[in-house]
Amino acid sequence: MYGLTGYKPDEYFMRLALNEAHKAFDMGEVPIGAVLVMHEKIITRAHNQVELLKDSTAHAEILALTAAYNVLGAKYLPDATLYITLEPCLMCCGAMYWSKLGRIVYGAADEKNGYKKYTVQNPFHPKTEIIQGTLAEECAMLMKDFFRLRR
Amino acid sequence: MYGLTGYKPDEYFMRLALNEAHKAFDMGEVPIGAVLVMHEKIITRAHNQVELLKDSTAHAEILALTAAYNVLGAKYLPDATLYITLEPCLMCCGAMYWSKLGRIVYGAADEKNGYKKYTVQNPFHPKTEIIQGTLAEECAMLMKDFFRLRR
Repeated sequence: MYGLTGYKPDEYFMRLALNEAHKAFDMGEVPIGAVLVMHEKIITRAHNQVELLKDSTAHAEILALTAAYNVLGAKYLPDATLYITLEPCLMCCGAMYWSKLGRIVYGAADEKNGYKKYTVQNPFHPKTEIIQGTLAEECAMLMKDFFRLRR
Repeated sequence: MYGLTGYKPDEYFMRLALNEAHKAFDMGEVPIGAVLVMHEKIITRAHNQVELLKDSTAHAEILALTAAYNVLGAKYLPDATLYITLEPCLMCCGAMYWSKLGRIVYGAADEKNGYKKYTVQNPFHPKTEIIQGTLAEECAMLMKDFFRLRR
């Protein structure tokens, strides 16, 4: 499938999320990408566009989710997996709670703005499975490169 | 000002947020409203449109904030006050963190979905002032009426 040997779906889709993050990087946006997948089909993909849209809610996750609601005409996504290059912030975490996503797969941890810094209990929907650390090093490296260039 | 005696700005604007919540109620949406104000001028107003838009991010607060970013061409709102009829959820709380709002004034507490249930420390921007309980009873009553009608 996908012409790859040793195909691992989570890594495959996380690499596409990383491609999205690279697009953000090239546009001077904090390099975070997201891909929303249902039954191994990509529904939406997005990258951070806070600067372009001058909208501090325009995180990759929010854009991928709202585009999916629009495409699917559904406000809940229990059959979908959202791939994100970085641990979500509190806003995106809350948006995912409401979405009732089946799975959330994220790459690098975010000690500064990640949801874990603020929350006491699992803030996601109880039926949502959370996988962390997929391609974490690559996801983290892209963030580091971005901020190093700006200092 | 506004032709009212005993004018209290927070109550005045919260009443407008309640008007927004009533619009949601009339459309079969959970009755939550928001008004964004700068220098005593209304910039945007919104009500919950989750059902209409089939978009579980379409909370009153998110709609009021994103419309304000659009109107003002700014992604931070340090001079603005956001009036909300209900304690914000985690998603909206996170969106307000990124907005760097000057003030947040909310009405009723929300023990089920409010941000306080999940957070350990102040999740808002450290410079944001939080006022709670403005017209709380009226805001809570509207929610109760809504859910009583649906049971």
